[in-house]
Amino acid sequence: MTVIVKKYGGTSVSSISKIKKIANQIAVEKKEPNDILVVLSAMGDTTDKLVQMSNKSCKDPEPRELDMLLSSGEQVSISLLSLILNDIGVKATSLTGWQAGIKTNSQSMSARISSIDVKRIKSEFKKNSVVIVAGFQGINNKGDITTLGRGGSDTTAVALAAALKASECQIFTDVDGVYTTDPRICSNARKLDLLTYEEMLEMSGLGSKVLQLRSVEFASKHNVPIRVLNAHKGNNFGTLIKKEEKKMEGATISGIAFTKDEAEITIKGVKDQPGVAAKILGPIGDAKIEVDMIVQNVGSNGLADFTFTVSRNTLKNAMKVIEKNKKIMSYESVSSKNNIVKVSIVGVGMRSHAGIAGRMFKCLAKNKVNIRMISTSEIKISVVIDQKNLEIAVQALHNEFKLNKK
Amino acid sequence: MTVIVKKYGGTSVSSISKIKKIANQIAVEKKEPNDILVVLSAMGDTTDKLVQMSNKSCKDPEPRELDMLLSSGEQVSISLLSLILNDIGVKATSLTGWQAGIKTNSQSMSARISSIDVKRIKSEFKKNSVVIVAGFQGINNKGDITTLGRGGSDTTAVALAAALKASECQIFTDVDGVYTTDPRICSNARKLDLLTYEEMLEMSGLGSKVLQLRSVEFASKHNVPIRVLNAHKGNNFGTLIKKEEKKMEGATISGIAFTKDEAEITIKGVKDQPGVAAKILGPIGDAKIEVDMIVQNVGSNGLADFTFTVSRNTLKNAMKVIEKNKKIMSYESVSSKNNIVKVSIVGVGMRSHAGIAGRMFKCLAKNKVNIRMISTSEIKISVVIDQKNLEIAVQALHNEFKLNKK
Repeated sequence: MTVIVKKYGGTSVSSISKIKKIANQIAVEKKEPNDILVVLSAMGDTTDKLVQMSNKSCKDPEPRELDMLLSSGEQVSISLLSLILNDIGVKATSLTGWQAGIKTNSQSMSARISSIDVKRIKSEFKKNSVVIVAGFQGINNKGDITTLGRGGSDTTAVALAAALKASECQIFTDVDGVYTTDPRICSNARKLDLLTYEEMLEMSGLGSKVLQLRSVEFASKHNVPIRVLNAHKGNNFGTLIKKEEKKMEGATISGIAFTKDEAEITIKGVKDQPGVAAKILGPIGDAKIEVDMIVQNVGSNGLADFTFTVSRNTLKNAMKVIEKNKKIMSYESVSSKNNIVKVSIVGVGMRSHAGIAGRMFKCLAKNKVNIRMISTSEIKISVVIDQKNLEIAVQALHNEFKLNKK
Repeated sequence: MTVIVKKYGGTSVSSISKIKKIANQIAVEKKEPNDILVVLSAMGDTTDKLVQMSNKSCKDPEPRELDMLLSSGEQVSISLLSLILNDIGVKATSLTGWQAGIKTNSQSMSARISSIDVKRIKSEFKKNSVVIVAGFQGINNKGDITTLGRGGSDTTAVALAAALKASECQIFTDVDGVYTTDPRICSNARKLDLLTYEEMLEMSGLGSKVLQLRSVEFASKHNVPIRVLNAHKGNNFGTLIKKEEKKMEGATISGIAFTKDEAEITIKGVKDQPGVAAKILGPIGDAKIEVDMIVQNVGSNGLADFTFTVSRNTLKNAMKVIEKNKKIMSYESVSSKNNIVKVSIVGVGMRSHAGIAGRMFKCLAKNKVNIRMISTSEIKISVVIDQKNLEIAVQALHNEFKLNKK
């Protein structure tokens, strides 16, 4: 029998009436002879509330005990859905993470799934039960409950889909799927029918709102097709995310991603010699600050300018580190800029189509958008621009690559 | 090392500040070289709220799924206490029912503990951890979570105390212990220092407010001393409930129990012949109505009057059953009385002291309290009287047997 995995997030199960709607959808689908496995998050803001309780209780929570606290939320949502399904005549069984056989490592609060023993799930399928599994949780080899970190329910769903060889893993969200770009920025943004795992990963700025990226990596590794759908609409196709196939080579560019929370740091007058990058980035990394794009311009005087971007909320800290390490880094001056953004065009078609970068830069120039930094990967080209140009740039690129048309 | 089991009910853990108080008490006690195991109920009215959620979700809840829902409450309280203890420097580990090795039968909503595997608890004790166990829950042999029914946390505590050969099982409540009678009815009621299991069981009317009777039966069977204490006071002796010992033969009567929710049914003019009791009580039992006291008076005309008591909230239903089965029961008339109560004197001393019943009846007569029915057991004498006489009777008997003095 075909196995279908369906995952519903917190907003989709935030009230009993919403859970009843999901139950009705499942009841309709269960008329087909498929095995259905449902993964649920905790109801609404339950997990946030539990975190608040922990904060009220202690300053520095013991991770194992926080896992125990947080994992209680999903137990409520899964049992309610199961109660409702059984009440409307659809046999259903709810399983916690450990009951579903989800084994993890011992990294509390951000555990990784190590293996899944699907024996219990399969025995429930044999009884024709819909199986409802608590997302976000598992058990380590000591028998302690662990949680997978925020958005971990997506990973639970994908991992179960992989273990059960499901035909697809449906992730129900508040949106119709993944868009060519953010519709709030670009009015003719279009919902995509199909994306590759790589594109989805590169579209992080867009995609992370829809789907936890860790689950996409997992799906890519195990070749599990993911479908992102709207939980509040009946039949909808959503966006299918799957392995790249030859015939998928249609569009050059799939989408335009952007991130607003960027900041740029420029260190001027560093000696252009081997090891200088490490000298600068070492202390930054030690301070747990993540660096994104890096550019080094070599001047004629043997001194170089070193520019890189960090997350806006880490800028202050990064500047402190740089000033504190002035001697080691040995630079002339340092400056920073807050109001910048990163815009990326993403598409597997880039591999086989030349001149994409040129088209992108020309388009931005025509629209008087100055490019501050550039970085490229195999299927993505990113530029850093002034924040004030964000909408112009996204709209212009969306038109340039005709993303509003299939 | 000595093991001490401590159980706190829902009202004792109804807020984070209350849980912090408990944590501080435990921190003080942990300075002694004892192993401490704490059993908690869910916070405040959590379980009621979960039941309400189930009622909103469905008409006829699937018991297995309701167990899954209800058992989530204790997971919150145990992890919070553990977070707080660890935060104040007391090593602690919370364990759900299944993690604590509590195996039960498969009777959802009222499961019985079948065995306890204390391996995990003992390994935590070896690490000098306070162990905090979720009350009210266990796991059946299919790996499903079960609950022990209302008040099941008392049973969890006693069962763990038995399995760990604890020196005593301390049940923390809102009162100072078990009283000779209800202080609201009798102002000079005295807290008892010591009671036998049998006395505690017979004092049901008094005791059930303090302690779940099933846990007393369990404690009696496994000879676990139970101490009922006040959760809101520091050091307090409470009431110790233990096996009867020779030297305990002091007091004749330990306490006066009463139940207000009684009703009396009299069936007149039934044939006085073998099997008549079964004919009358059969249909009542079939309707799941519990009968308490039964009296049969035989008249000279070969007809008998049959009087019995039922719980007041089942009276209406009982009368319906009797009227419906008039033919089978073959009686002349039936009547009922609502405003009656049962008063019992309880004490193991009765065994060795003659004339207790006579003293009781004489005392009631002197106070103009009419006795409607009488029943006796080895350590209890119960009378049914008019509700209006309840306070007079309890106060008079309390004085008669000098219960205000040790």
